[in-house]
Amino acid sequence: MNILYDERVDGELPRADKAILLAELRQRIPDLKLLHSAEDLRPYECDGLSAYRTTPMLVALPERLEQVATLLKVCHAQKIPVVPRGAGTGLSGGALPLEQGVLLVMAKFNRILEINPQGRFARVQPGVRNLAISQAAAPHELYYAPDPSSQIACSIGGNVAENAGGVHCLKYGLTVHNLLKVEILTVEGERLTLGSDALDSPGFDLLALFTGSEGMLGVVTEVTVKLLPKPQVAKVLLAAFDSVEKAGAAVADIIAAGIVPGGLEMMDNLSIRAAEDFIHAGYPVDAEAILLCELDGVEADVHDDCERVRHVLEKAGATEVRLARDEVERAKFWAGRKNAFPAVGRISPDYYCMDGTIPKRQLPAVLRGIKDFSDEYGLRVANVFHAGDGNMHPLILFDANAPGELERAEELGAKILELCVAVGGSITGEHGVGREKINSMCVQFNADELTVFHAVKAAFDPSGLLNPGKNIPTLHRCAEFGGMHVHAGKLPFPELERF
Amino acid sequence: MNILYDERVDGELPRADKAILLAELRQRIPDLKLLHSAEDLRPYECDGLSAYRTTPMLVALPERLEQVATLLKVCHAQKIPVVPRGAGTGLSGGALPLEQGVLLVMAKFNRILEINPQGRFARVQPGVRNLAISQAAAPHELYYAPDPSSQIACSIGGNVAENAGGVHCLKYGLTVHNLLKVEILTVEGERLTLGSDALDSPGFDLLALFTGSEGMLGVVTEVTVKLLPKPQVAKVLLAAFDSVEKAGAAVADIIAAGIVPGGLEMMDNLSIRAAEDFIHAGYPVDAEAILLCELDGVEADVHDDCERVRHVLEKAGATEVRLARDEVERAKFWAGRKNAFPAVGRISPDYYCMDGTIPKRQLPAVLRGIKDFSDEYGLRVANVFHAGDGNMHPLILFDANAPGELERAEELGAKILELCVAVGGSITGEHGVGREKINSMCVQFNADELTVFHAVKAAFDPSGLLNPGKNIPTLHRCAEFGGMHVHAGKLPFPELERF
Repeated sequence: MNILYDERVDGELPRADKAILLAELRQRIPDLKLLHSAEDLRPYECDGLSAYRTTPMLVALPERLEQVATLLKVCHAQKIPVVPRGAGTGLSGGALPLEQGVLLVMAKFNRILEINPQGRFARVQPGVRNLAISQAAAPHELYYAPDPSSQIACSIGGNVAENAGGVHCLKYGLTVHNLLKVEILTVEGERLTLGSDALDSPGFDLLALFTGSEGMLGVVTEVTVKLLPKPQVAKVLLAAFDSVEKAGAAVADIIAAGIVPGGLEMMDNLSIRAAEDFIHAGYPVDAEAILLCELDGVEADVHDDCERVRHVLEKAGATEVRLARDEVERAKFWAGRKNAFPAVGRISPDYYCMDGTIPKRQLPAVLRGIKDFSDEYGLRVANVFHAGDGNMHPLILFDANAPGELERAEELGAKILELCVAVGGSITGEHGVGREKINSMCVQFNADELTVFHAVKAAFDPSGLLNPGKNIPTLHRCAEFGGMHVHAGKLPFPELERF
Repeated sequence: MNILYDERVDGELPRADKAILLAELRQRIPDLKLLHSAEDLRPYECDGLSAYRTTPMLVALPERLEQVATLLKVCHAQKIPVVPRGAGTGLSGGALPLEQGVLLVMAKFNRILEINPQGRFARVQPGVRNLAISQAAAPHELYYAPDPSSQIACSIGGNVAENAGGVHCLKYGLTVHNLLKVEILTVEGERLTLGSDALDSPGFDLLALFTGSEGMLGVVTEVTVKLLPKPQVAKVLLAAFDSVEKAGAAVADIIAAGIVPGGLEMMDNLSIRAAEDFIHAGYPVDAEAILLCELDGVEADVHDDCERVRHVLEKAGATEVRLARDEVERAKFWAGRKNAFPAVGRISPDYYCMDGTIPKRQLPAVLRGIKDFSDEYGLRVANVFHAGDGNMHPLILFDANAPGELERAEELGAKILELCVAVGGSITGEHGVGREKINSMCVQFNADELTVFHAVKAAFDPSGLLNPGKNIPTLHRCAEFGGMHVHAGKLPFPELERF
């Protein structure tokens, strides 16, 4: 069994010889843009998770495939770890650099290579922004469905690496469900094609395996995504509730009625107030919770479904149900939701965004649990999330300058994730594990399961040089952390063992 | 790199000592049912692909998890290959036994462990029949969506191993899209859980990797599937066309209109006549092609969609469009389609069923290509398939007793698969690679890609003892076969290189 490189030993390694690396890169790839001064490196010391920062040894900004392939070959020969990075919007520190490593920034690969309306696909370079794909497909009345809140900035290569989600994943699936084919370079600089242009590909499903692998199995160099016809019409209902539990139950009722909304989101009072102050979306600020339910498709169907959903919501005890009267109001309803994170940032010096996923039926229980933890730790928690998917985003509000608050926030966050695992869920829905949740993986998986992850990693990257220290913890780390107990039957919440 | 066991060397291996194996199994698992007489072994010498037959050394019929785990440990220690088998209905020889191996039959694991209507899932043992899950869920108005034509007989464990499809996969996805969690035993008899009860699972997506791995990565011991609410109503339209190309174009038009039918199937004249003679489904026997388009959902939506599809079909040149007037006629329309394979079996002594998948826009071109090959080889080909998915099932009619016909049929089949790959498709959609299409994998993949498959196989099964000789060809085999050229740019159909 290959032992994965653990970033904790980064400092103890014999220092990589930066001068030798630079010399060879300059000789073999003279036109490759490299950054190595302290000043130039600073902007790259973190991604969207700013709580963790490391200055990379070197930043490479290639523009051509051959440059990337040669860079990988040189690093592999010199045993230098490589951390791939897209737009750097990730929220779990998946692109956190290594002091002894090269940060491989793929942002310059930003060309749309093909929009094929007959075949309903787009072939793009990995640095293309998520939203840019839909914009390029718009003249053909097509779009790319997964829409992370960062879609204006995040890149499709990063979306593949993190298996990104978004508001519309309930109906249209995660990134993995919207891909046809991905071209990658292995750690040794070899090209591989995963997937095909058809429905299914024989052999093992390496495309699904690669999606969400967080830069540990290869570097994305080209992505072919599925395009969908734009829905003729989309309408949004806003429902207010006087309790979070009632709103949670209404989510279950809508799904149980056989309706598949385009999006089904929940916000609690703290999030509602923060978003309303910031965006003026027209939210009812006295409600304990609101649901936003989008229905899309052809006109007649959407009209009927709106009536059915309204009926379900009223029966579930909604104190108010409001249909966005036009596109302007619909856009406002969504703007409030999509800007909820920055809105919460305005009411607290710092916040810590969690990303647990739970079976939907556990929603009321987990919301109650979060409330209890919040009281116990004396920190406010705002809940704004993809309710229809069971993908929660509790935002823990804290002040990093107040002594001990960061630690309390982290502890509270870990408690929430443990609760998610205990009710049969997982520690991440769409933000990835990255550096942030590496210890929580010890709670989610046992030693046998982690061993298989390591073996799969070694199948692609026997050297362990691609993005080490992220996503899959070493057994050593887990032993120190004292985790890996859930599957062995010792649940942290024994009262939840049967649910 | 681990060298995979190749079944061609089966005969050359030092003979496994059957007596020693039997003695150890009897001592360690006294209550395990074992078959080893020539007479008892005969029923197991093939699966649904009867063209290939091998008598296994031994058949094991365990009933408890511990028996399977111990069996695997004993075989692993004695270096004896193990071929897992579900109901034996597979069409690509994935469960073809080995002369020197144990056939591990999981049919006795046939208990439904849990139907959970709140959580919308069913937890079942691997030997449970596909249709039995929907039957058990029916009192809750739920069902399991993937519906292979063999659903009355095939088992869910086999469905997972083959990533089985069916008529309704267009709307509801393949097996992989309808799974939450799979429990497996590794080749060394260790238990692993893949997936979780929530939307997504962190780490690498081993559940997707395992699904469709054809018994090469582990033995399925428990499956948790998603259940869906039964559609309120389902209606079927039958449209007749005077050319296969027009029917193919109509398929594209329906999808382009943004409609997602529950099923969208095509049959050509030869299939129509065969099915009509057998089932009396009421098909128009003079049509060159028919489409069956099922629309399901809530009453009002289905009504509207039926009108829209009728309009599209008429515009596409349908000579007749007929709505099944009631459930009886709807069932008859589907019975004709689902029995098309046995129906073709009545008009030809033998047939050879292909399973190529192509990008939908290539449908007319590939249908023309099949027609040309059919003329060239002097063998009739019936086309009946999942048109909406681009998943084709050409049935090559031949007479195994006529000298040379089997060989001609195989050659014609290989030509069709090469054409599928050349237009950007793949050699299998839902039947798997198994033993049958092992050589075609050399056409689909290059040496680098196969090397990754082998590395992934080795991550789970370094010994190479699980179902050797299926699914992933050795590089040696491909070198002999002279394949592995498509990705290197040397397409067998250069005129199709850009499409």
